[in-house]
Amino acid sequence: MRTLYDLAGADPARRFSPYCWRTKMALRHKGLDFETIPWRFTEKDVIAFSGQATVPVLVDGERTVRDSWAIASYLEDNYPDRPSLFGADAARGVTRFVNGWADTVLLAAILRVVLMDIYARIDAKDKVYFRESREKRFGMKLEEFVADAAGNLAALRTTLQPVRTTLAAQPYLGGDAPRYADYIVFGCLQWARCISPVELLATDDPVAQWRGRLLDQFDGFARAAPCEVA
Amino acid sequence: MRTLYDLAGADPARRFSPYCWRTKMALRHKGLDFETIPWRFTEKDVIAFSGQATVPVLVDGERTVRDSWAIASYLEDNYPDRPSLFGADAARGVTRFVNGWADTVLLAAILRVVLMDIYARIDAKDKVYFRESREKRFGMKLEEFVADAAGNLAALRTTLQPVRTTLAAQPYLGGDAPRYADYIVFGCLQWARCISPVELLATDDPVAQWRGRLLDQFDGFARAAPCEVA
Repeated sequence: MRTLYDLAGADPARRFSPYCWRTKMALRHKGLDFETIPWRFTEKDVIAFSGQATVPVLVDGERTVRDSWAIASYLEDNYPDRPSLFGADAARGVTRFVNGWADTVLLAAILRVVLMDIYARIDAKDKVYFRESREKRFGMKLEEFVADAAGNLAALRTTLQPVRTTLAAQPYLGGDAPRYADYIVFGCLQWARCISPVELLATDDPVAQWRGRLLDQFDGFARAAPCEVA
Repeated sequence: MRTLYDLAGADPARRFSPYCWRTKMALRHKGLDFETIPWRFTEKDVIAFSGQATVPVLVDGERTVRDSWAIASYLEDNYPDRPSLFGADAARGVTRFVNGWADTVLLAAILRVVLMDIYARIDAKDKVYFRESREKRFGMKLEEFVADAAGNLAALRTTLQPVRTTLAAQPYLGGDAPRYADYIVFGCLQWARCISPVELLATDDPVAQWRGRLLDQFDGFARAAPCEVA
């Protein structure tokens, strides 16, 4: 059995990390069983054995792998007989661009919308750490960072334009079938879905339809997760 | 012999279309000979046979192919024994995301920097068409669109962050070797290089080093193009 350390809120059933969602979808794509351990931001000592202070951390038998991209690469290399995450090894490089875009652009745009909802739902013991670390990073109060709610939501929808353009031409970012590129972007949207009542997407947005297909995957695995959106 | 209709400025040697650069790099990647015909924005009648009003248009024997993405796909499918543009067919889907990002985000950011340099260097007969079509699209005068030169250049450099993040992990967007994903982004930068004296990239930017390697490719094919940057 594999064990995944998975970011949780005050409610241990609330699992909202976008990076952990990438890993959970990748494990399901590979058809690999795993159990999760809820983990809070400040429980650095619990995962100190991994050499990393953040999740996901995957323990697979004797091996410990940290960082969502490294875990995806590890799963692809060590379970080559299972369905491919990248489609082909030659697709791994360009998939990293999607990863870089999601990490530097998409997550930042979503954070402007869901930040205070995260703050409201994380464990009490994480709140001081969360506020201090984020306010230092942003150079402003959390409340200032999210002040223009309508503008931030509109900006996020614009940010998703490359996803929309791609989905106008093919059913998944990976092409004809879902691949890790899809889970990278999906994980970002699932982060919001699990922590915030704000619906990020207009109902007629093709991105919403694509997300729906990914929520249905693996017998509705991601749809079954406790979430805030109706 | 193949023929490519290639956007030109007042000087017919100035070939600056980002889309045509993608196609020229793709043809060289495949090792396919071609000649180019300089084409101006308003010469719609010259390429009317293609069913499209914009370049690139490739005539390959009996076949006419229009649109840079369609041409890349055509070359990959029809010249399978030549070096692969995508690395593997499974990489084509995710490469389309890079195409979508470049078209919707990167080109728009570069345009804010180079627009007036384009206007200055296009053929006299194209100037009215160019100003009217762009001012309609932007909803403002060309001069207003580019007013904040320093801010626009800084914004462009931020826009390139996903490229930078990817290149921190691997030498090319396509992975270990240049692929069509690289030519998509490179074509955008080459567009600017051929039409504007503004250097888009700081010399210590890893994106500049990567661009340098692509300028050197195919015996310095892109580096040999008439350009404005020293």
